[in-house]
Amino acid sequence: MNPVELIRKKRNGKSLTNEEIEFMIFSFTRGRIPSYQFSAFLMAGFLNGFTKQETAQLTRSMLYSGKVINLNSIKGKKIDKHSTGGVGDKASLILAPIVAAAGVNVPMISGRGLGHTGGTLDKLEAIPGFTTNVTLQQYKSIIKKCGAVLAGQTKEVAPADKLIYALRDVTATVESIPLITASIMSKKLAEGIDGLVLDVKTGSGAFMKSYEDSMALAESLSNTAKAFKKKVIAFITDMNQPLGNYIGNWLEVYESIKVLQGEKVDDLLELSLYLSGAMIYLGNKSKSIEEGIWIAGKMIESGKAFDKFMEIVKLQGGDLTYLMHPAKYPKSKIHEKLFANSSGYINTIDSFEIGMASLELGAGRMTMEDKIDPKAGIIFYPKIGQKISKGDLIAELFTDKKKSIDSVKKKINKAIIVSSKKKKPEQIIKSISDFN
Amino acid sequence: MNPVELIRKKRNGKSLTNEEIEFMIFSFTRGRIPSYQFSAFLMAGFLNGFTKQETAQLTRSMLYSGKVINLNSIKGKKIDKHSTGGVGDKASLILAPIVAAAGVNVPMISGRGLGHTGGTLDKLEAIPGFTTNVTLQQYKSIIKKCGAVLAGQTKEVAPADKLIYALRDVTATVESIPLITASIMSKKLAEGIDGLVLDVKTGSGAFMKSYEDSMALAESLSNTAKAFKKKVIAFITDMNQPLGNYIGNWLEVYESIKVLQGEKVDDLLELSLYLSGAMIYLGNKSKSIEEGIWIAGKMIESGKAFDKFMEIVKLQGGDLTYLMHPAKYPKSKIHEKLFANSSGYINTIDSFEIGMASLELGAGRMTMEDKIDPKAGIIFYPKIGQKISKGDLIAELFTDKKKSIDSVKKKINKAIIVSSKKKKPEQIIKSISDFN
Repeated sequence: MNPVELIRKKRNGKSLTNEEIEFMIFSFTRGRIPSYQFSAFLMAGFLNGFTKQETAQLTRSMLYSGKVINLNSIKGKKIDKHSTGGVGDKASLILAPIVAAAGVNVPMISGRGLGHTGGTLDKLEAIPGFTTNVTLQQYKSIIKKCGAVLAGQTKEVAPADKLIYALRDVTATVESIPLITASIMSKKLAEGIDGLVLDVKTGSGAFMKSYEDSMALAESLSNTAKAFKKKVIAFITDMNQPLGNYIGNWLEVYESIKVLQGEKVDDLLELSLYLSGAMIYLGNKSKSIEEGIWIAGKMIESGKAFDKFMEIVKLQGGDLTYLMHPAKYPKSKIHEKLFANSSGYINTIDSFEIGMASLELGAGRMTMEDKIDPKAGIIFYPKIGQKISKGDLIAELFTDKKKSIDSVKKKINKAIIVSSKKKKPEQIIKSISDFN
Repeated sequence: MNPVELIRKKRNGKSLTNEEIEFMIFSFTRGRIPSYQFSAFLMAGFLNGFTKQETAQLTRSMLYSGKVINLNSIKGKKIDKHSTGGVGDKASLILAPIVAAAGVNVPMISGRGLGHTGGTLDKLEAIPGFTTNVTLQQYKSIIKKCGAVLAGQTKEVAPADKLIYALRDVTATVESIPLITASIMSKKLAEGIDGLVLDVKTGSGAFMKSYEDSMALAESLSNTAKAFKKKVIAFITDMNQPLGNYIGNWLEVYESIKVLQGEKVDDLLELSLYLSGAMIYLGNKSKSIEEGIWIAGKMIESGKAFDKFMEIVKLQGGDLTYLMHPAKYPKSKIHEKLFANSSGYINTIDSFEIGMASLELGAGRMTMEDKIDPKAGIIFYPKIGQKISKGDLIAELFTDKKKSIDSVKKKINKAIIVSSKKKKPEQIIKSISDFN
């Protein structure tokens, strides 16, 4: 096969065969096709699209560029969740212990934060001692012991994805639904799962700003999961405002503990229960998502979910002291409060800017090399539709970077639009699609 | 400026400013943008197109990546011709002396052959001693002495084009009208011309197979010439059959001499007179193309054109012996004749295959490194619409490569379709557009 001919084929809007896709991915991954040819191929695919079958093959080729974990030796269903990322999205920390407590295995491989969104790995590592860097042997043994593992991606998982993503990042070929699908699914399918719950975010803080794009991505992900005979349920959920109130790594662990201990953080609790319910259902521990939600609620009320969280943290080397006594956690040098400078109804929140503000305080990174401050972040109170009065507490900022305070305050003030007109609160769950 | 943002802009179908195009071309040429970014940019431009203004700026940036020759010290107009290439197209060798004899300067920088089409440089170099490798000083002095120069492209001319073309060749981004335009015009504008006659070929042996594509390319080339305040006349001419009867380097020099000495080779003579007439007109030596054609005819009849050709060849180091006594030219080891195996009317000729057959005999090259045999080639007699009978002489083959004979015979036989139905002969001139 000739790479120029395959680039030309895609350029002309034709579909590539499985063998042709395989040739492109494998040859690029092994350094047999130079990056200038692969980037031309990516751009042609970006603009002319890939079919369902091509997307499945892109995924397959990227998946089998690395190791695929086999969890057949572990009894029971293995179900994971994938979120496309948002601001304040700590749902993974809440649902993994809930679902594991309900008897469904949760083998979860997560990523790090970049830009305005945080990453599950960074949040977990805010717990002193917690390691996400586990061997395949440890991965299996932790799941076997407690029904869940919260790990980072090893080098053996989908190495093609890493190479391709790095090239997409510098050639303006990131925002392609088939390419995003293959990138996500090649990693998720390597985990050894039976089913997957998808949380595709939509809104100002999400990767996909419109409902239509989010649904298109959800469908593409689900189609690909089905091509691999995995069960899948896709949620489209709101990201027009931060999820919960805590943004920043330790702050999000703290809020997760509160929810696991029964505190009613409206949107965050609702989302966690729905996603857990769907996972419990896919794990054959309930007859419906609704029954799964009911079970999930029971796991919180009974304290079993929190106990499971403690168990996971302990097995992965984390210090339980701070989970039991959060007040003992190290404090940021600066703790500033921000107050409303006008009265009215919260109309819109630019969640992207809130995420960037948190990053500026030290909670995030712009490049993969940046270091994160686990203590830094924002407690952000406003919710769309809420009435506020001038002087009300809007946000609390935690940082060691004194210089960032003024710019962050400006960012947050600019991100909140207050109007005299009432506005309906956002629904956290926009849609649930059972593609099975 | 950020290359990723500019790739994204073009990817999203937006137009780039002159400064942005300049940034991309200059940065790539100077090695500041990696080829994987530039190839993604090329593919985005290939699929989303470039406007007239962008095309002019692509040309400008590529032109000024190198030296622009100034011929102001030479009196009179400087007019060149550019052909998009075809099989048996030796018109440059005929029109340069005709037009120079008529008092218009012809500063002509040509290229080498690749694939099924020959190159003017290779044809000229079939004349022993002839050098196309001249310095800028020689270039000017030859023009000053005889009114024409037939040179090769130096390294100083449009170096950006060389780099970009090499990348386009391996990333399936060649067949883009704006990119073709910038490639051709950046080199032509570097010659120091006042005007340009374009010969855009259309048909089975041409780069552009359809009339519509040929006209689109002619328009794009003309628009760009006008953006640089150059006069331009564009011809669309037939390439559904080889031009004249001789294909191969020395064979084409030989046929050119015949035409310059007054032999009536129908299509080749007609094309040469038309193109010469347009050049004489653009050079202000006639009031119309028609008057220019009349003058061109006079230059042949009077012997002035042939004398001018001898003068040019002598000034560029060529041995005149073979021009005066072609029979003295070295002979190929093999001279085979090919006869018709059926009777009827010539319906279609796959000129691409005829060009490839000539290449196989040694007259062309597949890669720029291949060596050419100047003696090799084909005398090809059939013309569309002609009646032939079984046993008629179709072609004479000249080669030193005995092994190629069988395959070439097969190729030629397959390339000619004979039908019992009469067919109208092809018109060589399909259209003339004066874009001034």
